[in-house]
This record gives sequence, structure tokens and C-alpha cells, in this order.
Amino acid sequence: MRNDGRQYDQIRPVEIKTNFIKHPEGSVLITVGETKVICNATIEDRVPPFMRGEGKGWITAEYSMLPRATEQRTIRESSKGKISGRTMEIQRLIGRALRAVVNLEIIGEKTVWIDCDVIQADGGTRTASITGAFVAMTIALGELYNKNGIKEFPIQDYLAAISVGMTKQEGEILDLNYIEDSAAEVDMNVVMTGNREFVELQGTGEEATFTRAQLDALLELAEKGIGSLIEIQKQALGDLALKIESNLGAKKK
Amino acid sequence: MRNDGRQYDQIRPVEIKTNFIKHPEGSVLITVGETKVICNATIEDRVPPFMRGEGKGWITAEYSMLPRATEQRTIRESSKGKISGRTMEIQRLIGRALRAVVNLEIIGEKTVWIDCDVIQADGGTRTASITGAFVAMTIALGELYNKNGIKEFPIQDYLAAISVGMTKQEGEILDLNYIEDSAAEVDMNVVMTGNREFVELQGTGEEATFTRAQLDALLELAEKGIGSLIEIQKQALGDLALKIESNLGAKKK
Amino acid sequence: MRNDGRQYDQIRPVEIKTNFIKHPEGSVLITVGETKVICNATIEDRVPPFMRGEGKGWITAEYSMLPRATEQRTIRESSKGKISGRTMEIQRLIGRALRAVVNLEIIGEKTVWIDCDVIQADGGTRTASITGAFVAMTIALGELYNKNGIKEFPIQDYLAAISVGMTKQEGEILDLNYIEDSAAEVDMNVVMTGNREFVELQGTGEEATFTRAQLDALLELAEKGIGSLIEIQKQALGDLALKIESNLGAKKK
Amino acid sequence: MRNDGRQYDQIRPVEIKTNFIKHPEGSVLITVGETKVICNATIEDRVPPFMRGEGKGWITAEYSMLPRATEQRTIRESSKGKISGRTMEIQRLIGRALRAVVNLEIIGEKTVWIDCDVIQADGGTRTASITGAFVAMTIALGELYNKNGIKEFPIQDYLAAISVGMTKQEGEILDLNYIEDSAAEVDMNVVMTGNREFVELQGTGEEATFTRAQLDALLELAEKGIGSLIEIQKQALGDLALKIESNLGAKKK
Amino acid sequence: MRNDGRQYDQIRPVEIKTNFIKHPEGSVLITVGETKVICNATIEDRVPPFMRGEGKGWITAEYSMLPRATEQRTIRESSKGKISGRTMEIQRLIGRALRAVVNLEIIGEKTVWIDCDVIQADGGTRTASITGAFVAMTIALGELYNKNGIKEFPIQDYLAAISVGMTKQEGEILDLNYIEDSAAEVDMNVVMTGNREFVELQGTGEEATFTRAQLDALLELAEKGIGSLIEIQKQALGDLALKIESNLGAKKK
Amino acid sequence: MRNDGRQYDQIRPVEIKTNFIKHPEGSVLITVGETKVICNATIEDRVPPFMRGEGKGWITAEYSMLPRATEQRTIRESSKGKISGRTMEIQRLIGRALRAVVNLEIIGEKTVWIDCDVIQADGGTRTASITGAFVAMTIALGELYNKNGIKEFPIQDYLAAISVGMTKQEGEILDLNYIEDSAAEVDMNVVMTGNREFVELQGTGEEATFTRAQLDALLELAEKGIGSLIEIQKQALGDLALKIESNLGAKKK
Repeated sequence: MRNDGRQYDQIRPVEIKTNFIKHPEGSVLITVGETKVICNATIEDRVPPFMRGEGKGWITAEYSMLPRATEQRTIRESSKGKISGRTMEIQRLIGRALRAVVNLEIIGEKTVWIDCDVIQADGGTRTASITGAFVAMTIALGELYNKNGIKEFPIQDYLAAISVGMTKQEGEILDLNYIEDSAAEVDMNVVMTGNREFVELQGTGEEATFTRAQLDALLELAEKGIGSLIEIQKQALGDLALKIESNLGAKKK
Repeated sequence: MRNDGRQYDQIRPVEIKTNFIKHPEGSVLITVGETKVICNATIEDRVPPFMRGEGKGWITAEYSMLPRATEQRTIRESSKGKISGRTMEIQRLIGRALRAVVNLEIIGEKTVWIDCDVIQADGGTRTASITGAFVAMTIALGELYNKNGIKEFPIQDYLAAISVGMTKQEGEILDLNYIEDSAAEVDMNVVMTGNREFVELQGTGEEATFTRAQLDALLELAEKGIGSLIEIQKQALGDLALKIESNLGAKKK
Repeated sequence: MRNDGRQYDQIRPVEIKTNFIKHPEGSVLITVGETKVICNATIEDRVPPFMRGEGKGWITAEYSMLPRATEQRTIRESSKGKISGRTMEIQRLIGRALRAVVNLEIIGEKTVWIDCDVIQADGGTRTASITGAFVAMTIALGELYNKNGIKEFPIQDYLAAISVGMTKQEGEILDLNYIEDSAAEVDMNVVMTGNREFVELQGTGEEATFTRAQLDALLELAEKGIGSLIEIQKQALGDLALKIESNLGAKKK
Repeated sequence: MRNDGRQYDQIRPVEIKTNFIKHPEGSVLITVGETKVICNATIEDRVPPFMRGEGKGWITAEYSMLPRATEQRTIRESSKGKISGRTMEIQRLIGRALRAVVNLEIIGEKTVWIDCDVIQADGGTRTASITGAFVAMTIALGELYNKNGIKEFPIQDYLAAISVGMTKQEGEILDLNYIEDSAAEVDMNVVMTGNREFVELQGTGEEATFTRAQLDALLELAEKGIGSLIEIQKQALGDLALKIESNLGAKKK
Repeated sequence: MRNDGRQYDQIRPVEIKTNFIKHPEGSVLITVGETKVICNATIEDRVPPFMRGEGKGWITAEYSMLPRATEQRTIRESSKGKISGRTMEIQRLIGRALRAVVNLEIIGEKTVWIDCDVIQADGGTRTASITGAFVAMTIALGELYNKNGIKEFPIQDYLAAISVGMTKQEGEILDLNYIEDSAAEVDMNVVMTGNREFVELQGTGEEATFTRAQLDALLELAEKGIGSLIEIQKQALGDLALKIESNLGAKKK
Repeated sequence: MRNDGRQYDQIRPVEIKTNFIKHPEGSVLITVGETKVICNATIEDRVPPFMRGEGKGWITAEYSMLPRATEQRTIRESSKGKISGRTMEIQRLIGRALRAVVNLEIIGEKTVWIDCDVIQADGGTRTASITGAFVAMTIALGELYNKNGIKEFPIQDYLAAISVGMTKQEGEILDLNYIEDSAAEVDMNVVMTGNREFVELQGTGEEATFTRAQLDALLELAEKGIGSLIEIQKQALGDLALKIESNLGAKKK
């Protein structure tokens, strides 16, 4: 039995609230257990300098935590004057993951900015960010499509992320909360599509190692969790889910 | 008639939701019209270096906006690597205002950190921050008092803030929203106590000037608005309001 | 009796020395009691990016103190690599105040840079900066006008600034020196025009509050001080004062 | 056939030159094909603040590239005044990987600094850094052990890293050079021990995804490559390899 | 004939005004032609960390220019957030030069901070800074000695600095003003003691070279200029000059 | 006898290895005793903003040390987020020195970037950098000339640098190693051409002074050392030396 009463292969309750904030083109509040992240998507009508003239779009992400998202207050990165390595890693991960399911040619020379702001943290903030950001981005691009800003719907598949890990006490478990994460010997973040293909796989032994058999067990758990998350995304997306299904159907043919 | 249908002396609908986030000692979501600010209060068991050994407490504030709190996405100050002059001014104002109604000797060598994070902006974010932060701070210090962390309840009076201003079209108005603020020739932020004494008064002609008579009219509006805000704070504070009243009563004698 | 023998409503001796430094278009050394500030005005033939194409001018200010302007040596902001919140507030205040009395359309796409460098500090450095900067700016714009760089003389009114405050011992006093400022419970900076209209009003209770009656008394003192300062500015400006009077006269009609 | 004539499962020629620079406690120049990295290990007699008093050691890494390690000159991070996200990710990866095979209790309150400076880059600089840094660290800790600075030899297993990936043209390949890396749709870095357990697994679809079957094929290639690298490490380490074997033997019992 | 009518071996008019600013322990305004530098000396009762426990003093300098010290306004280094290479070179030079004539053992664990702030620049700001800083430092240390803060007078000799250079038109010249400096092919700064020994010699061909014979001619000019400057320093120092003479006399015996 | 057995006027063994790294247009590893510096030259097809439109080229240098180039590990400047004053001085010196022997008109609007990275330090790193950088730059410009990127060979003379100094024990000595440098009372860096003209002369008394006679003795040593270094440069340059000789010959006529 886990510290919050879950089974080893059970995810925490997930809620995705759309239209959370009024200004962004897509705005979501995702709640995964006690973790809460505001995911906002902004469409900007240009691309960064290194991509100009290629006729393709770009997706980039920023991630931050409110100082008291955590048990102990953490110092703001704006006050320190620099972004930590952890934040940079997460930002790069979110952007890279989202780009894997979007046809950037369709978007044209536009940038989708994703802002993930953690207002309450209890483990899994980067995976919750990706899962929520996918919904915010889909809403923003859906609106752009509806307004004829782009000619085709550019999202090719669903995308969600979940953590799996191993603790000495519980073995392999799905969707770690903060206490489990702190105790984990192996920590793995998995980003997958609706087709159950991998987009990103980051497994780390924390002063520990893991065998191939353990890896297999963890990947099986992750796939199960991703499945549940994508069902919740579908409900949040409503009609937009049909557009993704349609792209998926076209791809299979 | 104002752009949102209000009277010239009418504040926007205000809601103060307490216990918004679970980790902070005091956490409030304040909504003033379309402006929404998360105000968290943290008690830290030490004071900054310049105050050590004086036996007194300290109250300090940080203020930030989510990038899409605004109509156009603004660049994060953590990405720019420095805090803007506007942010610094607001942070200093919030801290200074709160310190005016707290007996720092009672707190002893502790710091109250106030974090005001604007998640949606529509004018008046600094005054909403002060009004919300007062409630978050009171909750945090109330809890500290209840747990015997301090011997007396240190808050001496209520504290709220409101903007007043003048536009060419409407003349003197109370509690400006973003459109009104952009059009204002005179912009004034007023911080007052429950006793209707001034804590801070910042009036600025935006490439314009104002007369003594206009100042008087603005101050009258502000006092009215402050009165309404303090009533809403009282309701949000519940029993804690009694402790403030008790301190106010003692002072009058 | 105040610590330097002045009456409660008496300003310190003020001297405004023009043409202090040879390179700037306008250069002034202002001495207010023991406070000395070099105010230089530079005309630049372009505006900042956010104003381009509007056909209007801009006025911006920078403020700094020599390390030993103060009793204790303070660390240079260039060595720390960042500008303090206090400096930013003062810079923004000076620029905003000056813009209130200048017709920016007349100036066209030019920037007036104001540099206020405090070489000796004894309280009131920001108000001395504004009072001196007004003279330096007027000289620079006067020269520009004389050389046909602009078609009309753009300064619409005089502008000066003074501090008022309250100490426990002396009550309301005018033009606080450093010792008085350190002891003040209420500190207020007032920027006014020759017409005695307000441009900026910043009153702060330092862990204290002030009543409406006290505010009225402070404003009366300030107005008196501003009157004296403007007389001194007139003498320093010589013939340029006539140009301001002429604009003032035109306005009244 | 690959662009440099290798088989799909063939690593590039690897050379590990020990005692490359005279000052460090351990110094290695590792050459992997055309990639050359100087890996220096420094023993410092204290740990970072967050670890003090725990009686354990720490291992941390820094990574940099000479400006002309690359085809196009890259700007120095010291000139830009900040470290890129990519550099931070790599630094964190190297440190984390090395810590997985070292008994930090044995080291006591000492820090091992690893400096990986790429002097010539042709793909795989982070994996070459880990493989070389392991040797430099082992030499430094071996010397410390020989001088009785520590009572037991703290390294528990070998550690090496390799990249695997998929390109459209070649499918799954081992040890990608720069041209292959640029063309890769999937890029995976694998860090493993001598016991063929995973320490770190980072697989990324570059605007692409990968299936479970492809993952399995990549992991098989990686394991083969790690085996070859560890043989080369053994030769470079000489007698020190025996100390690792001895720890490995003890573990198995 | 030079552009300002001087002979090739003639220095500009020099004035050293002592007690320029009231707070510093030593304060000087040095004027060399049209170059004006405020040199302030501060005594701090501790040394930087790298010198603690050695029982010796330290002398360090900071140098800055007001933005309009120059013909064109230069951006403040505090606004840019970093100090230029030129400023760093000059700061290091001033500190190093002054340390050469002071017995740091006598000072004990104190720091002399030298602040050189150029308010008007017309060439030779670094040499004027050294010449003026020597006087400010001597005054500050003289006061410390008179108050028994140190047991012996620590200054062992006079110290002054001057520039020499070569232009195509004038050949070798002494004490270059800004126009001459801009045209110079060779630029040399010389710091010497009262005994005519060298402390610092920095000669630079500006996209040009110079022969041994030319070097000899330049050094002869410099020595002459240094002699004149030291006479002016003596007058500014008054009785303090006797203390230096006395140390010089003791040394010769 | 010196600590490494050399005569007072003897330089350390020098080796210049060309084509050290494959990507740069010119790449050299220079070894001077135990000091080793990688000098890379890059040709960039544009000049910095302040030189655009003049039709002239530019040469600029960057200098850095690996953290363990030194006995004690030094913190990376990229980690500190700023470049030290020492590094800036050296960078400026290298660039200035090289520009003295290159005809920048011939190069046209191109920049030669020189990167000097010290991988092992034992005194004289800045002079070794200049001596090595001259060779790397000559190779890069030679290649540019051979490929018709420029019409004439732009290098007008050889250029090398050496240190001389005085220690209490050894008197005047040539080419100081780290131990000698630490003990030196006078430290002088001399940059000269093949024609034995000075490009740069930087002599510093380290809390000491030096006489004219001592200066003469030091310059004689330096000239001798420069002669030896240029012979070694000639061998490293091979046929390119002939191009320099040819320019030198043309100049003499």
C-alpha cells in the first residue's frame, strides 16, 4: 500500500480545467493529485531568428514555480537573476515533447509559447506540465484553425507524460508523489503519444542502477498511465479531440 | 457611465478566497473585477542581515506577473535576468505598507515573506496585491499566534489599498480598470488603515498635473473605496477580525 | 528649533550653478544645504524603440551617487552589476516629473537624457535632482531652440521638488536634512509646477500613519518651499525664464 | 554503410591518454573518432554547503567547449555571462552518472570536481566526457586511496556512456558522429555499469517518435558499445582496474 | 606648436583642490587642463578576505566616468550591468601604483579605498586619477596617523603619473590632451616616484611600433613631467609633505 | 642558478605544434616550458558594428584558462557569470599586439578571432599566447590569401612576446616561470617585432620600484628572448615565413 492509499499501478486523480485565464489563446489548470499547474499557450506571429525564412513554426516552453508551490519557500529565479539547470532541463523537455506531435510546416512562421506555472507542487510537475500544455496548445491551435489562421489542423496525435519509479519499499510504482519521489532509487519520466509510441524517455538511477527487467516493468506501468491520461485529455478537449482522431486516422491509412 | 457600467465612485466586485494553496502559512486568491492575484504569506525564522540582533521582525514582499496575465505576453523577468523598475517599486510599496500596521517588536526576529503573483491583470494589480496580502499575512500571523509562536497578536489595524484617478472623459473615478488606467491623466494609489489614516499616497500626473481641489476629490473617493474593501477583508478573516478589533480598541483607550 | 537652526517652514540655502561641466548641452551643480548634485542634460537625436514613429520626444533620467557622497562608503552599482530598487524609483520619478511640463510633440523624435550624479548627500537628493535637472533641461532645450533644432520653446511651466515630513519632536517640517529624514515618521516628496499644480505626490508612513489634517499641513509647507525654489530657478535661468513665462501667459489666455 | 565506413554496430576508434595535464589529481585526454575531450579530476577537501555535516562526499561536473571545437565558432559562455541550458543538462548528467558507481560514504566530506573540456567536437561529446571522466576520477581517487586519504577504494563498478540513434537511412546505429547525429530522428544516450545495469537512459524523438521494438534494438546496440568502452577503460586504468574488480567481486558474494 | 599652444615638453595647467567633498577621509578635485577628477579616499577597518590574518593593509581603487564627462554621452556601467575592460585595467593600475609607495605593514589590517570619478574628460584621466589619488590617500592616512590610528606615517615617497606619446605631426610630446591622444601612434603612461624610479610603464603602439631611441625620448619627457606634478602635489599637501620627506630622508641614510 | 637550472638570460624550451585542432583556420599548440596554450584563429566574414563601412578588418582575442591549468582549481568565468579584470587585460593586450603587424586595409571587412586557451600554466601565459597566436593567425591569413580571399599577404612583420623581471635573489632574468613570477619585484611583458621595434611594453613594480638602469638591463634581455622566439616561429611557419620576409624586404626599400 502506498502512502496515499493508491495501488502500485494507479495514477492520482486528474482534473483538466480549460479556459482558466482569460487572455491566453489556450489556458488550462491541470490538477494531478496535489500538484497544480497553470498551462497557458500563446500564438506569436513570428519565429525566433534561427528559424526565419524556413516557412516552419516553432514551439517553445517556459516553466516556473511560485515560491510557495513547495513546502519550503524557494527563492524566485528572477531575484537570483538566473534560471536553474533544473528549470532549463524541464523547459527544453516540454518544448521538445510538444514539437513531436505537431506538424510545424502547417503552422508556418508562428511560435507557440507554452507557459507552465506550478502553483502547488507535490511531485510530477514536469509531467503534469506536458499533459496540461498539450491541451492548452491544442485549444490555441484549434482556435487559430477555426479562424483560418492555418489551413489544416496541425496536431498529429495525443501526447501525455507520466513518471514511474522504484523505491526500496514499494518496488516499481506509477505516478510518484513528492514523498515517493524523494525516496525513489530510480526515477523515470515517460512521454508517449496516443499511438503508444515514445517521444521522450528519461530514466535516472539516483545513486543507484536498474536492470533491463526493471526497465521493462517500469515501461509497462508508464504505458498504462499514459492511456488513462489521454482519456482525460479527450474529455477536456471535446470536439477538438475529433480533429486529432481524424489526423490519426489519415496517418494509419 | 464607465466602460464597465460602474458609477464613478463604485469599486469592482471583490472576492477574497482564503486557503487557496496548501503549503503557505497564509494563502489568498483575491479577485478584483478581472484582476486575480495569489497572495501567499510565509513565516521564516530569521531576519535579513541588516536587522539581526535588534529583536524585531521584518516584512518583505515580492511581486510578479505570469507572462499571460496580460493581453500581450510579457517576457519573464527570470528570463531577462533582472527585475524591472516597475516590479521593484511595487515590491517595496507592498512591504512598506504592510509594515505600517504590524508591531514588529511582537514578531521578534522573524520575517514575513509576502508573495503576490498576478495570474490575470486588468488594472489595479498593486492595490489588489496589498489588499489580498494583508489578509494572507493576518492568517499566517494568526496561526503563529495560535501556536504560541508569538505572545501577542501583532496586527494593529486593517490595511487596504485602492486606486483613484482622473480621465478626461470621466473626471475623478474610483478603482480604475486597465482601459481606464491607460486613459488616465492622473493616477493615484492610496493605502489606508481601518482608522482611515494614510499609510501611503502616490499620485502621479501622466504628462499632466492636478490641482489641490482635484486631489481632495480623489482622496474622498479613495476613502470610500477603502471602507468597502475593509468590510470584505473582515468577512474573509472571520474570527481573526476580532483580534484586530481588540487591538484597535486597546489603542483608542 | 531644528538641528541646523532652521524654522520648521524654512528651506536650506540653495545655489544653482549653471555651465558646471563643458560637454553637456545643459549642465548644473545644485547645492541644497550640504547636498550637492551634478545635473547634466543631453539631447540625443532619436527616441527609444517603443516610441519610434510617433513623432514625439522622450525624456529619461539616470541617477547615481558617488560612493563617498554618503557618510559610509556605499558600493558602486556598477560593481554590484545591478541597480537598486531605490535608484530605479528615483530615476523613474525624475523622468516622469520632467515630462509633465514639456510639450513632447514640439521636441519631435529626440530624447533628453538627464543624468543626476550626487557628489555629496545630506537628505533630499531626489528632490534636489529634480529641481536642478529642470534647469539643466531648460538650458539644453533653450540652446536647441536657439539653434533652430525645434520650432517652439517646449517648456510649459516651471517645475521644482521638495520634501516635507513629520518627526515626533518637530512635527511637520519643510526640506528635511539627513538627520531629520532618518528620524521622520512621515516622509513626503512633492513635485509642483509654477502654477502650484501637483505633478507628483509621494507620501509614506515609515512604520507609521498620518491623518488628513496632517497631510493638509504638509502640503501647505511644500507649496511654500516650491515657491522659493522656483524663484531661485528663475534667477539661474536668466532670459530663458522669459520663454517659460511667455508659454505660461499663452496658456492662461 | 555509414558515412565513415563503420558497421551499424561499430564504435569509433577510442583512445584514453592518462596523465595528460600535470596539475590535476586525475587527467585524461579521451579521443572518440574525431571528438577529443580533456577530463580532469580535482579532489577538494570539503563539500558544498547543502551537504555539510552528513559525512558523505560529493561529485560534481563542469563541461565546456572551446569556441573552435566546432565547425563554426561558438561564443564563449563566459563572454555571454551565462551558461546555456544544454551545458547545464550535460553537467548535471555527468555528475549524476559518476555518483551512481561511487560509495560517497567512503570518500567522506570531500568533493570530486570533474572538468570536461571539449577541444574538438564530432558528436558524442557528453558520452565521451562520461567515459573519460570515469577514468580521470578513478585515477584521482586511486591516488587518494594510495596516500591513505581514504580507507577503502570507493569505486564500485565501471561506468561508460555511449549514444545510439536512428536515422531514416541507416536505421538503428551505434555511436553517432556529428553528421549522423544531425540527421537522427531518435537520439539516445545510455550510461551503464560494468554489470550492464542502467544508470541513465535519455531517449529523445527529434520531432519524431519511436516504438517499443525500436527501443529494444537501440538498447541492445548500446549494451554492446558499453562493453567495448569498458575494455578500453580497463587498459587505461592498469592496476586500478583490479581494485574495481575486487569491489565487484565482493558485491557479488 | 601643439593644438592648445603648448610646447612639446610642457604639461597642462594643474590644480589640486583638497577637502573637495565633506564625508571622505581624503577628498581632492584634480584639474589637468580640461580634465577634472574627484579623488576620494576612504579608510575601512578591515581587509579583503584573501588578505585576512596577514597583519598587512590593502589599497584598492575604483574608477568611473560620469556619462557626460565625454563629448558623446557614454552608457553607465551600472546600466549595462558590467564593468568594461578599460575600466578594470585603469582600476587595477591605480591600486597597484599607490601600493608601491605605501608600507602596508604599518597600516595593519585596514583597506584604503580610492574612488576616482571623472566629471570632465579631456585625455589623461587615468594619470590624473593617480596623481590626485596620491594626494587624497596621503591626506586620509595623515589624518589616521594624527589620530593615532597608525604608529608611523606609512607613505615612503611621492607618486605621480603622466602620459607621453608620439603623433605623426608633433613627434614625442608630453601630457596628451584628448585630440592628441586620438591621433597618437604611440601612447605611454608612466608612473614614477619622487626619487624618479619607475612604478609602472605602459607603452602601446596603436597599430604602430616604436624604436628604442623613441622610447628613450619619451621616458625623458615623462620624467620631466613627473617632476612638475610632484611640486604641485607638495604644495597641495602642505605639512604632510614634510612627513614624506622625512621618510625619504630616513631611506637614503 | 635559477630554480629550473637556466641561465639568467635563457628562455625555456619552446615548441610550436601547428594544425593542432582540425576545425579552425589556424590552430597551434604552443609549449613554453610547462606552459601550454592552444591558440586558434578563426576568420569571420564581417567586422564588429563600430567598424562597419570603413573597409578595414579587425583582430580580436579571447583568453581563458582551464580550471586545472593551475595548481589550485580556479572557478570558471562562465560559472561566475563574468570575466575577471585580469582576463580582460590579457585579451585586450593580445588583440592590440597582433593588430600592430597586420595591414587591416588588406583584410577588408573581416574579423580574425584569436582564441587562446591555456591548458597548463607555469608562468608567462599571456606572452606564450601572443607568440602562439601570431603563428595561428599567420596560418589562417595565409590560407585566406592562398584561396584568394585577400589580394595581398597582410602580415608586415613577425611578432613575439616575452616576460622579463627582477627578483631579489636573481636580479634581472628572462622568461619567468611561475615560481620566479611569484617572487618577482618587477615584472615586465615586452612585445616586439622582427625588426626589434616595440609594440607593447608593460612594466610593473609589485610593491616595488625600478630604476632607469634596471629598465635598460631588462629591455636588453627581452630583445634577446624575442630573437630566439622569432626563430622558432619561422620554423613553425615554413613557407609562410617567406611571405613575411618579402613584406619586410619591401618595407625596407
